[in-house]
Amino acid sequence: MVAAVSEIGDALLARLQAFMAAHVYPNEALYEQQLHAVPGEVFRVPAIMDELKAKARAEGLWNLFLPHSSSGAGLTNLEYAPLAEEMGRVYWAPEVFNCNAPDTGNMELLDRYGTEEQKRKYLLPLLEGKTRSAYCMTEPDVASSDATNVQTRIERDGDHYVINGHKWWTTNAYHPNTAIYIVMGKTDPTAPTHLQQSQILVEPGTPGIRLMRPLSVFGYYEPPKGHGEVIFENVRVPVENIILGEGRGFEISQGRLGPGRIHHCMRIVGQSERLLEQMCRRLLSRNTFGKPLAERSVWQERIAEARIEINMCRLLTQHAAHLMDTVGNKAARSEISQIKVAATRMGQRIADMTIQAFGAAGVTDDFGLAHTYARMRTLRIGDGPDEVHNRTIARLELAKYKPPREKK
Amino acid sequence: MVAAVSEIGDALLARLQAFMAAHVYPNEALYEQQLHAVPGEVFRVPAIMDELKAKARAEGLWNLFLPHSSSGAGLTNLEYAPLAEEMGRVYWAPEVFNCNAPDTGNMELLDRYGTEEQKRKYLLPLLEGKTRSAYCMTEPDVASSDATNVQTRIERDGDHYVINGHKWWTTNAYHPNTAIYIVMGKTDPTAPTHLQQSQILVEPGTPGIRLMRPLSVFGYYEPPKGHGEVIFENVRVPVENIILGEGRGFEISQGRLGPGRIHHCMRIVGQSERLLEQMCRRLLSRNTFGKPLAERSVWQERIAEARIEINMCRLLTQHAAHLMDTVGNKAARSEISQIKVAATRMGQRIADMTIQAFGAAGVTDDFGLAHTYARMRTLRIGDGPDEVHNRTIARLELAKYKPPREKK
Amino acid sequence: MVAAVSEIGDALLARLQAFMAAHVYPNEALYEQQLHAVPGEVFRVPAIMDELKAKARAEGLWNLFLPHSSSGAGLTNLEYAPLAEEMGRVYWAPEVFNCNAPDTGNMELLDRYGTEEQKRKYLLPLLEGKTRSAYCMTEPDVASSDATNVQTRIERDGDHYVINGHKWWTTNAYHPNTAIYIVMGKTDPTAPTHLQQSQILVEPGTPGIRLMRPLSVFGYYEPPKGHGEVIFENVRVPVENIILGEGRGFEISQGRLGPGRIHHCMRIVGQSERLLEQMCRRLLSRNTFGKPLAERSVWQERIAEARIEINMCRLLTQHAAHLMDTVGNKAARSEISQIKVAATRMGQRIADMTIQAFGAAGVTDDFGLAHTYARMRTLRIGDGPDEVHNRTIARLELAKYKPPREKK
Amino acid sequence: MVAAVSEIGDALLARLQAFMAAHVYPNEALYEQQLHAVPGEVFRVPAIMDELKAKARAEGLWNLFLPHSSSGAGLTNLEYAPLAEEMGRVYWAPEVFNCNAPDTGNMELLDRYGTEEQKRKYLLPLLEGKTRSAYCMTEPDVASSDATNVQTRIERDGDHYVINGHKWWTTNAYHPNTAIYIVMGKTDPTAPTHLQQSQILVEPGTPGIRLMRPLSVFGYYEPPKGHGEVIFENVRVPVENIILGEGRGFEISQGRLGPGRIHHCMRIVGQSERLLEQMCRRLLSRNTFGKPLAERSVWQERIAEARIEINMCRLLTQHAAHLMDTVGNKAARSEISQIKVAATRMGQRIADMTIQAFGAAGVTDDFGLAHTYARMRTLRIGDGPDEVHNRTIARLELAKYKPPREKK
Repeated sequence: MVAAVSEIGDALLARLQAFMAAHVYPNEALYEQQLHAVPGEVFRVPAIMDELKAKARAEGLWNLFLPHSSSGAGLTNLEYAPLAEEMGRVYWAPEVFNCNAPDTGNMELLDRYGTEEQKRKYLLPLLEGKTRSAYCMTEPDVASSDATNVQTRIERDGDHYVINGHKWWTTNAYHPNTAIYIVMGKTDPTAPTHLQQSQILVEPGTPGIRLMRPLSVFGYYEPPKGHGEVIFENVRVPVENIILGEGRGFEISQGRLGPGRIHHCMRIVGQSERLLEQMCRRLLSRNTFGKPLAERSVWQERIAEARIEINMCRLLTQHAAHLMDTVGNKAARSEISQIKVAATRMGQRIADMTIQAFGAAGVTDDFGLAHTYARMRTLRIGDGPDEVHNRTIARLELAKYKPPREKK
Repeated sequence: MVAAVSEIGDALLARLQAFMAAHVYPNEALYEQQLHAVPGEVFRVPAIMDELKAKARAEGLWNLFLPHSSSGAGLTNLEYAPLAEEMGRVYWAPEVFNCNAPDTGNMELLDRYGTEEQKRKYLLPLLEGKTRSAYCMTEPDVASSDATNVQTRIERDGDHYVINGHKWWTTNAYHPNTAIYIVMGKTDPTAPTHLQQSQILVEPGTPGIRLMRPLSVFGYYEPPKGHGEVIFENVRVPVENIILGEGRGFEISQGRLGPGRIHHCMRIVGQSERLLEQMCRRLLSRNTFGKPLAERSVWQERIAEARIEINMCRLLTQHAAHLMDTVGNKAARSEISQIKVAATRMGQRIADMTIQAFGAAGVTDDFGLAHTYARMRTLRIGDGPDEVHNRTIARLELAKYKPPREKK
Repeated sequence: MVAAVSEIGDALLARLQAFMAAHVYPNEALYEQQLHAVPGEVFRVPAIMDELKAKARAEGLWNLFLPHSSSGAGLTNLEYAPLAEEMGRVYWAPEVFNCNAPDTGNMELLDRYGTEEQKRKYLLPLLEGKTRSAYCMTEPDVASSDATNVQTRIERDGDHYVINGHKWWTTNAYHPNTAIYIVMGKTDPTAPTHLQQSQILVEPGTPGIRLMRPLSVFGYYEPPKGHGEVIFENVRVPVENIILGEGRGFEISQGRLGPGRIHHCMRIVGQSERLLEQMCRRLLSRNTFGKPLAERSVWQERIAEARIEINMCRLLTQHAAHLMDTVGNKAARSEISQIKVAATRMGQRIADMTIQAFGAAGVTDDFGLAHTYARMRTLRIGDGPDEVHNRTIARLELAKYKPPREKK
Repeated sequence: MVAAVSEIGDALLARLQAFMAAHVYPNEALYEQQLHAVPGEVFRVPAIMDELKAKARAEGLWNLFLPHSSSGAGLTNLEYAPLAEEMGRVYWAPEVFNCNAPDTGNMELLDRYGTEEQKRKYLLPLLEGKTRSAYCMTEPDVASSDATNVQTRIERDGDHYVINGHKWWTTNAYHPNTAIYIVMGKTDPTAPTHLQQSQILVEPGTPGIRLMRPLSVFGYYEPPKGHGEVIFENVRVPVENIILGEGRGFEISQGRLGPGRIHHCMRIVGQSERLLEQMCRRLLSRNTFGKPLAERSVWQERIAEARIEINMCRLLTQHAAHLMDTVGNKAARSEISQIKVAATRMGQRIADMTIQAFGAAGVTDDFGLAHTYARMRTLRIGDGPDEVHNRTIARLELAKYKPPREKK
């Protein structure tokens, strides 16, 4: 997007930047310190997070996502993009504004597809930032990039559904405040491929749920949210916990994933900007063989590459956001897949070159670069790996040139 | 750019697309046939070109470049972008609308920096499409990517300037209608680095000019314009032919190159779209080992990459164009360099993968792919090689983080 | 290969290098001059070629390919590798030693599979360098990377076979001395997939053969051999012209292509060495912004990459050659595919970076770089595109881990 | 290397493979279990390690490195290569055979440059596997890729040297058995650039040494060795602890780093083979959209790439090892740099694609892939980053073409 996005967006951005400068950046060290303060107690919420959330909410910098809904700030995806980018500069900042994954996706799902009762019980406390939520989709025993592979069963038994399955990568599973799981499973394995799945609400304390272990990402457990491996064994939930009805699970996941993906991309753009800044500063400060690294053409080439890629990904993100706003998530699915592939690849690449610029310091935790790399790398797998998105993009492209009767 | 660029732009685009469909695409074969009709007579203008120019001018599809000038259609760079993209789909189409390089750059230069007399004599016939022009910049004996290396001398001698030098890559040197050369040379080699150069107007017939030979681009001589190697030996031109005055040559070249570069990028986007279309159609039509190439994931990955890169480059081109319109060519010089690097790299990459998709047919002239590749590859060198643009981008980026007193 | 390959190989290499220094390099300019001496007569053999062939033969530097055969110099593939590399430094040098494609592959085919009569009539004059030969395999209407797609028919009719088909990329089709075509076609389209094809000997003058046109490679027609598009219309040849018998065509092509491919790779290594030398010399001679290009780290990185890739490809070529010598072409087919992919990719990459190092001079014919690029690029398609070789390598790799009963 | 390396090498390799199969692979899980058995006690040596070391030593599979020395097995570098490759398949296996970094480099250094007394005190227990050692080179405050940047001071004071400095990446700093540090520092900052440095032996318990903290590599602390940040504050050691004499530090580091680097490369080749095997098995076992991932061409392309790169890097490693054996480490320094760049880049690339093949499981610790990636990535920085090695390779290449008097 070339021009100013909107007046309301510009004003919010200025306020958000001011908040980041006044309250977030100055507390980065404190956050890490509080996070790791009690040895052995990994998944604790740093006190500063709650303080900052209260401040942000008081200033109206709250629930800025949620386009086209009265529950949020009423921004379009396009207006939200620069705000999410700004938050992305500090990996834990989005939660300060109640705009963090996976809660945003789950809130959007409940807002769009939940019954009034489901909204009252589960969405409201999420919107207030009092609870956290998890999305139980990926399974360890199958290639989950093909959603039809899901093996978890959700079977009707009178007034209840009975859930049996094995999930992992359940983000927020270890967060102390997590109050609700959204679980994907098959209600009817004999139905047409995309009508077999359903999604259902499950409270973490329900009998039969076993939290096996936290998963690490390149050695990082990512507290306080954590990624859990979870067993569901004869877990019984009331029938009214089904979302939108049996067989609607695939449809819901399609609806949920679009915004989730693009939010990640917006934040990656912001994170990459910060990496580029760190890289430039480092290269200006270190000398080899008689001159600053910043004057070596091999580094200038990488700086240029980073600048070009960041700018292109920002524009493509805004383009996709605008299409989501104007023609809808479904019509924009090629663009969403495009930016998912492009932004995560960029993020990984820039994190890698920033690590190289920092030398041995780059792989430590001193500048957060290795952890950033780990997050970037993981996002090339999460929410659909490159391979699946490339397939989607190509099929939509090829469809333009197929004879009408061959199209499917 | 996300939204519709402008109403006037949209209307023009529709008319341009209609013209392309009605008059250009159907004549592609004829153009090639006329071009090569007379063996031994390489640099001839196909008759169809003049017919189409007349048609286009009659329809008002003429001189669509030239932002902020009464001589053109009065479009902004941003409004011009989709039009240039559309023209770029056929390599000779821009001339139909009098929007082809290097004449556009030369016209813009004369429009911006020429005296009234210079405009009357040289700009007017160019704007009418009656003549062609050349820009004599690059020299075979030095690395011309550093403009200060220029060796050609322009020395004052009474009412004349005397030019001595050796140029090459003088595009249009072989075009039968070329009526004017703009020559870059040094008037004062002892002046500060960027004040040594001047630019001067020279008519091709002036005594002392020797057209040595046409240069080929990967085996292609690119008629009818051709790229010439030219010797200037004591070539005398009247003092009033100097442009803007002595020592202004570097400044002029900076002013000229911005628009020239972005026009190339706009056209590359259009050309790449057409390559992607050709690639898709081919992959749908060929089978190996029992199924169409289009169903193989290795090709789907490339199609996706092409789609992503084209979209990102289009957006970055429009972004740079918009900055040129709003903050000026100088303030937009990082963005101009960014798109120069990104678009040419993309064009080369997509041409290469399209060749691969066509197999042995790809390197022949049957589908124009090898020639397209040759043009794309050459553009990574022309108007400044990647290395120089990356240096520019990096230095502007690093300048943000340097202590104030160190900036230069 | 680490150690000296063999004493006989070392001695031959020294003599070959001396010959190149004394007779080939000094005549590079003359060769081009003679080649293009008569406008309009494209496919003529420069006189210097015949002179040098006579000299080389007299010195015993002749037919150095042909491992395990009394017809050649009796070298192994491994011993031949450094000799072919040396010849590869000048694109037309292999013919001086009667070691050029496609004649080497055709001679090897005839030597291995021909009847005594076929050898006498067609192999002997080839071994003496008096005639040239063509291999008619690729067809314009199908994806020839899958050999089973071949559409040409070879039908028995009494004492003759009748050939109907449409071939292209018939190298040597325009060479004045070409005396024999080896044509691939289907004798029995109903047989099992790999028993449908046969290969047959056809003399160029046979009625029904139409030479349609020469094909260009990035604008180059590659005289004097040329690449022809050829129509076979009811072409009748005696039954004794069949090679090895009906249904053996696929088997023969597998046997032929291994050595042909590795010879190309050997030559690519030599050509790449020369490109690296040209690149280094150029970078040492040109200055930008106050210092030689050779001192810029961005160029040092590319030089290092070229050096690493050349060394690795030389070693892999020798490794594959050694396997062909010791376990046979079939057992070495993964390694042959590996080096085919690796060497051609390297050659294209180094040619591209050398072009960039030369700037605008790189795309002209002044240093032969664009033509070298065109040959390198074409080799990524000829003799099987990357995609097919990667498939072969992967399937052999995966077979190691498949349960025994699933292997095929 | 094409042929069998040597009979003695082949026999050792067979015995080593048998040992790995019998004792190492079956204990991989146990090793991890013992390593993490006691929460809070991070740097402990798993009991299985000592058991396996005793077994390996009893079988004569001990100190296989150390070419040209009576202290080791008497193998050449070339003979050692396949052994190190085999050990590399399990990241902790080299220590089983007393062949692990950084101890091998330190032993080689002491063997080559130490006095008899230094050898008796420090080398002998290392050779017996009773102690471990550290090499204190890298400093956090300067770009250590330029060795002349070292800031640590080693000052003579009577019969002692006094050491002041700040080191990090001191591997083995946390190993319970570490008995000796080799410290690099400047004895004379006013001497010519490469004569300012010295290396000196320091026992870990010496007063003034402060072990600040362990450093993590992408979240991994790499027990039991660990990487330490160490402060030296007025640390006094006897003058006889200097190695080879004042001013010889740079010379020693050059001698030490060659073998260390190539050992890493040998192990990377083995590790990469194992990754490829893991990748193939995984791809055969997972299905998406109706067929195994192993049948998708996008994965076949990556398998082929891995196979090609591994083979090329193995050959280049052997080539460099052979040169070290025959012409010496100094004459082989381009080849050592070449393989350092090529092998680490390959290792990182293959680890990354294996992670992608495993999907979300790839970034966890379940298959060791993320940790492998972390080690590979770190090796692109350790022992000299790519940038420094590329510079070395390029300068040696360019030197071939410089006029004699310009060479330096």
